[in-house]
Amino acid sequence: KQIILLPGDGIGREIIDSAKVVLNSVATEFGHEFTFHQHAIGGDAIDRFGTPLPDDTVKACRNADAILLGAVGGPKWDTVPAKMRPEKGLLGIRKSLGLFANLRPVKGFKPLLHASPLKEEIINNSDILIVRELTGGLYFGTPSERTEDGNAVVDTLSYTRFEMERIIEKGFESARIRRKHLTSVDKANVLESSRLWREIVNEKAKDYPDVTVEHVLVDACAMKLITNPSEFDVIVTENLFGDILSDEASVLTGSLGMLPSASVRTDGVGLYEPVHGSAPDIAGRGICNPLGMILSAALMLRFSFGMEEEASEIERAVGACLEQGYHTADLRIKDGKQVGTKEITEIVLENLT
Amino acid sequence: KQIILLPGDGIGREIIDSAKVVLNSVATEFGHEFTFHQHAIGGDAIDRFGTPLPDDTVKACRNADAILLGAVGGPKWDTVPAKMRPEKGLLGIRKSLGLFANLRPVKGFKPLLHASPLKEEIINNSDILIVRELTGGLYFGTPSERTEDGNAVVDTLSYTRFEMERIIEKGFESARIRRKHLTSVDKANVLESSRLWREIVNEKAKDYPDVTVEHVLVDACAMKLITNPSEFDVIVTENLFGDILSDEASVLTGSLGMLPSASVRTDGVGLYEPVHGSAPDIAGRGICNPLGMILSAALMLRFSFGMEEEASEIERAVGACLEQGYHTADLRIKDGKQVGTKEITEIVLENLT
Ligand SMILES: CC(C)[C@H](C(=O)O)[C@@H](O)C(=O)O
Ligand SMILES: CC(C)[C@H](C(=O)O)[C@@H](O)C(=O)O
Repeated sequence: KQIILLPGDGIGREIIDSAKVVLNSVATEFGHEFTFHQHAIGGDAIDRFGTPLPDDTVKACRNADAILLGAVGGPKWDTVPAKMRPEKGLLGIRKSLGLFANLRPVKGFKPLLHASPLKEEIINNSDILIVRELTGGLYFGTPSERTEDGNAVVDTLSYTRFEMERIIEKGFESARIRRKHLTSVDKANVLESSRLWREIVNEKAKDYPDVTVEHVLVDACAMKLITNPSEFDVIVTENLFGDILSDEASVLTGSLGMLPSASVRTDGVGLYEPVHGSAPDIAGRGICNPLGMILSAALMLRFSFGMEEEASEIERAVGACLEQGYHTADLRIKDGKQVGTKEITEIVLENLT
Repeated sequence: KQIILLPGDGIGREIIDSAKVVLNSVATEFGHEFTFHQHAIGGDAIDRFGTPLPDDTVKACRNADAILLGAVGGPKWDTVPAKMRPEKGLLGIRKSLGLFANLRPVKGFKPLLHASPLKEEIINNSDILIVRELTGGLYFGTPSERTEDGNAVVDTLSYTRFEMERIIEKGFESARIRRKHLTSVDKANVLESSRLWREIVNEKAKDYPDVTVEHVLVDACAMKLITNPSEFDVIVTENLFGDILSDEASVLTGSLGMLPSASVRTDGVGLYEPVHGSAPDIAGRGICNPLGMILSAALMLRFSFGMEEEASEIERAVGACLEQGYHTADLRIKDGKQVGTKEITEIVLENLT
């Protein structure tokens, strides 16, 4: 399997290295062959090649079976013009590979739940999967421009029926293999795009009689994620709502540094990255948390390579490492032991076999 | 002062009655004259006049000094066509009166904080004012339509510089009379409208050297509201971001039923409504919580009539009533006493003098 590594900025390189070590160990254990090629993206690519997404990177990704991304961005590039920002690399790779489905599981780890801002009885037992549309909507609609005199501006929320259908199907498929409950989020009391979305959800629902569907307005969903997170199973929504709600959801369990994400398309090719950012303040110090990246690699094995057993094995090993009390500086575990990036990677490896 | 009452649907009538009783008491105490005229809006107006916003209602509101709104909507009207939905009444009145600034204070009440989904040490001491743009953006931009074949759809996020300037100024003015910290929320790494927004905030910042400005992306803000709510003072943002973030913020303190809101324009005319909905399930049973509506009436005195002393007096009386342990069925207070709508209104009155 051809895997492209895109470390990007900040702590990206350190966490990608950890994921690679874990994947190599899994390859040996299960008799797979993974080959890795590293390419530039984000601020790092701006510095070295003058663009956040070099053609060479896109070409390599097009030929890959899967991509692991560290993180992009940092204060260093905050002042470069919008079109050249590190984030453009991320948006560009999603769009040019057609990775339309962003899957963000949010599930707490018992030893970390005490760090949640929510009361334990509220967050306990919550296990949410957010399915976010990733290549349409306000992110890519045109026009997105000012008038010539600079006194007015528009952005365009644009979707085709086809784009809605495929992400909604992904939502139903995901719910089917989980607890069979799908929450579709829209703003149908205001937006025409949301009314079409809701119609399509209701049409598709007929093909999935085993899945219960609920429509929730985006503002109500933002409330319910806080008051009743355990009532959600799968949430499906368009790009910008998904951006906001998945970030909101990511802090509920108190372990943002642990959360993985997958951006996939229909043929199984996918890009995997942790939810946390590039953390430039602690980059290069060997103290960052690689577990979100390692769990992203597990999602790659599951979603892109169909290696369910291998994926579960990594997830089990990461869980075990926390149960044993090991954690990085961003986390706290009662009577636990704080260790660095390399050490915690070693401990995951030990738990693997 | 001419006050228009728009009870609307569900519990609207009961809570409007309570607010009127309290305002009459304040009028007597302070020697003011308030006249009240009641008009139809929302589902109630659909049932009686075939439209969610009768011309007669708009005309009356245009001549008023302020408007009190109960709540609109309910399952009864969920199946009527989009253009005729109760919410259209609300959107229509905002737009036709030019009420461009929605002010939503979020502050906890000590006796209710235990009901917050957040841990007490997280929510303690938070006191946020969300300033949301209310008559522009995706809510009113055109085109907002499907293609003829129904296979594609657009909504338009549109703003003029003028619309951005006046709401941003409102944000700065609000911060100036509070703790002098303004968080401007946008999605400048993706939207052109957000980049213009950010430029205008930076321009205006020069006129308010006493106010500290911080730019936060909408996804990051959705996280920070949960992890660090007490770090916010005033948040200013566009219409849809404000819709989502203000609803998210409204559940943080555990007392949604207590929260007021104001929708105002530059000359002081405003519409005041509680944040909670029409609660059709408990309508007409005399058990609903009128305190959010009563506190909205207090905001009316402050923002539309400049009656700061009277407004504070109501707020103090409502606080006192909770301190004495009185609450409605939606709330819980340790060793408290649950009472009905009329009783809690009486208790507020007793605390007034
Ligand atoms: C960096 C930014 C453009 C991006 C997004 O909004 O999609 C990020 O917030 C994310 O969720 O991956
Ligand atoms: C009812 C709806 C159209 C409205 C809005 O989105 O503005 C409501 O959610 C609000 O925040 O007042």
